[in-house]
Amino acid sequence: MKVALAQLNYIIGDFEGNAAKIIEHIEKAKNAGADLVVFSELSVTGYYPHDLLEKKEFIRKAEETVKQLTASCNGIAAIVGAPRINENERGKTLYNSAFFLADGKIQSVHNKTLLPTYDIFDEYRHFEPNRDFHRIEYKGERIAITICEDLWDEQPTANEFGKNKLYRVSPMEELAKLNPGFMVNISASPFSYNQENWRKDVLVSKAKKFNTPIFYVNQTGAQTELIFDGGSVFINEQGEIIKELKYFEEDFLIVETENSGETSLQPKTDRIEKIHDALVLGIRDYFRKMGFKQATLGLSGGIDSAVTLVLAVRALGPENVRVLLMPSKYSSDHSVKDALHLAENLGIRYDIVKIQDAVDEFEKELVPLFEGTQSGIAEENIQARARGIYLMAISNKFGHILLNTTNKSECAVGYGTLYGDMNGGLAVLGDVYKTDVFKMARFMNRDREIIPENTIIKPPSAELRPDQKDTDSLPEYEVLDEILFSFIEQNLSPREIENKGFDAEVVKKVIRLVNINEYKRFQAAPILRVSSKAFGFGRKMPLVAKY
Amino acid sequence: MKVALAQLNYIIGDFEGNAAKIIEHIEKAKNAGADLVVFSELSVTGYYPHDLLEKKEFIRKAEETVKQLTASCNGIAAIVGAPRINENERGKTLYNSAFFLADGKIQSVHNKTLLPTYDIFDEYRHFEPNRDFHRIEYKGERIAITICEDLWDEQPTANEFGKNKLYRVSPMEELAKLNPGFMVNISASPFSYNQENWRKDVLVSKAKKFNTPIFYVNQTGAQTELIFDGGSVFINEQGEIIKELKYFEEDFLIVETENSGETSLQPKTDRIEKIHDALVLGIRDYFRKMGFKQATLGLSGGIDSAVTLVLAVRALGPENVRVLLMPSKYSSDHSVKDALHLAENLGIRYDIVKIQDAVDEFEKELVPLFEGTQSGIAEENIQARARGIYLMAISNKFGHILLNTTNKSECAVGYGTLYGDMNGGLAVLGDVYKTDVFKMARFMNRDREIIPENTIIKPPSAELRPDQKDTDSLPEYEVLDEILFSFIEQNLSPREIENKGFDAEVVKKVIRLVNINEYKRFQAAPILRVSSKAFGFGRKMPLVAKY
Repeated sequence: MKVALAQLNYIIGDFEGNAAKIIEHIEKAKNAGADLVVFSELSVTGYYPHDLLEKKEFIRKAEETVKQLTASCNGIAAIVGAPRINENERGKTLYNSAFFLADGKIQSVHNKTLLPTYDIFDEYRHFEPNRDFHRIEYKGERIAITICEDLWDEQPTANEFGKNKLYRVSPMEELAKLNPGFMVNISASPFSYNQENWRKDVLVSKAKKFNTPIFYVNQTGAQTELIFDGGSVFINEQGEIIKELKYFEEDFLIVETENSGETSLQPKTDRIEKIHDALVLGIRDYFRKMGFKQATLGLSGGIDSAVTLVLAVRALGPENVRVLLMPSKYSSDHSVKDALHLAENLGIRYDIVKIQDAVDEFEKELVPLFEGTQSGIAEENIQARARGIYLMAISNKFGHILLNTTNKSECAVGYGTLYGDMNGGLAVLGDVYKTDVFKMARFMNRDREIIPENTIIKPPSAELRPDQKDTDSLPEYEVLDEILFSFIEQNLSPREIENKGFDAEVVKKVIRLVNINEYKRFQAAPILRVSSKAFGFGRKMPLVAKY
Repeated sequence: MKVALAQLNYIIGDFEGNAAKIIEHIEKAKNAGADLVVFSELSVTGYYPHDLLEKKEFIRKAEETVKQLTASCNGIAAIVGAPRINENERGKTLYNSAFFLADGKIQSVHNKTLLPTYDIFDEYRHFEPNRDFHRIEYKGERIAITICEDLWDEQPTANEFGKNKLYRVSPMEELAKLNPGFMVNISASPFSYNQENWRKDVLVSKAKKFNTPIFYVNQTGAQTELIFDGGSVFINEQGEIIKELKYFEEDFLIVETENSGETSLQPKTDRIEKIHDALVLGIRDYFRKMGFKQATLGLSGGIDSAVTLVLAVRALGPENVRVLLMPSKYSSDHSVKDALHLAENLGIRYDIVKIQDAVDEFEKELVPLFEGTQSGIAEENIQARARGIYLMAISNKFGHILLNTTNKSECAVGYGTLYGDMNGGLAVLGDVYKTDVFKMARFMNRDREIIPENTIIKPPSAELRPDQKDTDSLPEYEVLDEILFSFIEQNLSPREIENKGFDAEVVKKVIRLVNINEYKRFQAAPILRVSSKAFGFGRKMPLVAKY
């Protein structure tokens, strides 16, 4: 049997657009002689529609769209994903379903059994788990269908307290009893730099254990914070990856089950390059799917805004990015020079605006109220917020979306001004630790110097007071980032982190900073997720707590 | 049997404080001759700890605290709520459990069966559902325990597409087979102005159906957005509410099962009064539990800041609230006069700061960049953001938490400036429609004029340009709020809302405004929840979507 893997980029709720894309690829598969074409999980609606799933009209539209697709399925079969109403009296309103379409009809429906409800996943909010296992018979082939998490009844966990058998059922085990010739898994599995290997391990181990070839089709493209990396595969019954589709872009491939031909895999990339590619896609899709074209940001001469800018230019083109340089009296000369140098390297528009006069006006007006107090954080924040006003003025006037340049280390310890440099429509580096931001800068400069060397080597500083350095109040980033990773990604206790060899006082201070800044992150811009635990909706901490 | 209902206010993660409070009430119950004292759901940790439940040390601490409580349970039994590790190989890491403590030991543990995972609830994220039903035998009494949602196997829904039988099991039905003498339900059921009656209906119908008295113990107090209203009850087997504890405060009552004495209910209050009391508690607990005392806000002379201020003064005392008056050239004289008048009525500190000079500096600096453009939203927003800078300067300098004054109608249609008047640590009116804000002002003035009459009767305006009125760009609030309620709380489609008698164009425009402003709400302050569908974590909409 010839099976086509259609790895596509959908827009949530864009039924017309998604259907057109699906129909185009059904035709393409048919013309290439495929018997079956497979699309990803919830391909009709895009993954994940969240509470749009609670709107009746949304579900009706999804049903109509699936029916509309059946018209294209003559002489070829297709598997598409869509929500579907649970007709039973009891249980959640919907199933997360795969529809098998052939001969102009919906031939069968297969519901998702394991509903991920952890980290960024929230599927039990909307879906009832499947309890009924059946297979497809088509052109003499026995096909079993699973949906994404259905293969993950055993899974690795980054957090040692996490369980690796979250579910009581193994859908593969149930389906194996039906003796399928091969297995199709339709997925919407978001990128994180640890996830890609876990995913391959799970697929390979399942194919081996059940001695069954697996066609795995993932979606690609970004949906606000989540970046879906594609990387669909065909794995033979020995658990060998025979075909691997592209990462971070759409791809399409036809595989013959009996004679799958030569092994063809994607080139290996390292972690920083993957994160780089993920972020470029994350920015590009956020703008494209929102209907925006242009971005702005504040260029300080520091490394975070430099790396964010390069990513933005790669995602949107230099003609669509403009920046403001907003030096204050505490900005060093070289900061301005480095910023100018970078803007010129990239060929983007820049403007310089002075913040001091406006800051002075605020301070003058506050003199009677602040009498007898020492200059401190309140005054520093006025500078950061005045910059925010200029950037938002550009954004409001010309429709440029403000990109936030905060990195994960800063975001973790609250080293940023709410309503100031925390502003932005999208936080590009919010899931990238500072030490990785440096590595990313080096990676960007590997062929030629784009980011000025001085930006990379100078000690990081917010430049909100004379001679300020980040290390005045924070440990070195090498130490900070390891403590943060242990606490955030690995969920270790202070004691366990100390046991890795860190100073108890430093550990305590860092964890305290993370905890007391939940309120700031609550109001932060959406963060492009690249790790196994990003700030945002995958990490829910109570704001008011004593712990 | 004498059963004590302990309706208390816990702090999330404050094991020492919560334990001390529980022990104090065990002693109190014992001294009053009670046989059993009942505390609410997750009383040991406070409800809801969110992803703190993913920390091993947090769970260990909860276990230790439960053990510590057993020492007080001699000569009296207690039921407390805490998370507990699921020792089975498969399933989620934890159970949400009730511990029955007597004779200095944990006598039995009862796990929650129905795990609410919708709206603001997220319990399947952390907990495995119970499948094992057993009862307590104590002093010759057969006691069945359920936890909150366990009674809600049938439930009313505000949204007609919602299902009213979300679960496949009825814990009451299972427990009824064990022939209990009475039922205890430990709860953490948050207030919404529709919820209170639903809750009573459910309790009454269950008591009747199973012919079993029910002791229902709810927690009280606010946890950031969620306000728990208490209102614990004892219902007899005929389904009559015999005892009702206070709303929005701690309470304690002993009931004799054989002779429960006279019926004693709480005075009836109307919807606006309930919302008023909920918001006062919401503000008070946010500050108290965060360790803050003082609040600030911008007083414009309009109704939203006036009502917010009165609530803040009632929650924190006039000595803990200070305001800024920040008129611009577009502010009318009466606005300043009304604001002064209110501040004086309340006896709070106020300062007047001018925003115009700072605004002028920004505009001057932007002249070359804005050349050839018309003055519009970009310029209006500079005013709102300059005000934000002053308020945050007060907040940063003196530690006053900024209260946000945005109402639900504005929040819905995006009528507010991000990083300007949307600033704040807590949004007090974010779940109160404008028409209800007016009613609340009247309610506050029922004994004497606190809020100046002129603030209530003048046409609402943001005063960001000459003679601006809200109705320039929005329908009248009576119309707007009904459309919003139909769309947000009831989840109706545009067609269904039109069918209620609204103009199709107006409906379309309002819904479009709601949809395109998800990005603003994403960065909004936490909102005190008083309705069945508040903006915030109980309503998750994709930011990037075409729908």
